[in-house]
Amino acid sequence: MTDLTKQKCEACTIDAPLVDKKRFAELLKDLDGWEIIYEDINILSKTYSFDNYEDSVKFATDIAKLAEDEDHHPSILLEWGSVRVQWWSHKIKGLHMNDFICAAKTETLIS
Amino acid sequence: MTDLTKQKCEACTIDAPLVDKKRFAELLKDLDGWEIIYEDINILSKTYSFDNYEDSVKFATDIAKLAEDEDHHPSILLEWGSVRVQWWSHKIKGLHMNDFICAAKTETLIS
Repeated sequence: MTDLTKQKCEACTIDAPLVDKKRFAELLKDLDGWEIIYEDINILSKTYSFDNYEDSVKFATDIAKLAEDEDHHPSILLEWGSVRVQWWSHKIKGLHMNDFICAAKTETLIS
Repeated sequence: MTDLTKQKCEACTIDAPLVDKKRFAELLKDLDGWEIIYEDINILSKTYSFDNYEDSVKFATDIAKLAEDEDHHPSILLEWGSVRVQWWSHKIKGLHMNDFICAAKTETLIS
């Protein structure tokens, strides 16, 4: 499939297309550990584990920088030992291609 | 009441005392906008609003620094426009005085 990390988020309008659910399995193949959970809307979610706080804080702030670069902002839940990241598109109440792009780029922040 | 911001978290052991529920109302008086929610255990929670992402990220990272200074780590949920902070004490499954101290110190990070 196309390397999502090479793509850039496009401006999301209220009439932008939701990703067809039939594509979810294919898109998740390259997103190790990511899952789509349903909480009124579909959300792309992953929880990363850390064995120290410093690394988890750095990861969370790196995601925040990515969010600003892409002008697309996820939910980041920082606790000791973990960072849960969730991407979805508020305007269209579900998953836009932007969310899969940002999940792929989130993966690149972990080395 | 004693100024909580002048106190320091003490090491929390599994036999440390939970704060007596009878003191909750008194302790919350000086914690503007904080509430105690019950999710299997009592949690001290507040959601702060922001009109830009940069300020919310700075606040979240300032809380993370406070957490390291106090060696007590909250749940920080960062989204566009808001930061939800939740303090509780894992070891004693509820609220220790440390949590009220850290909530008071969280307030000082907002100016």
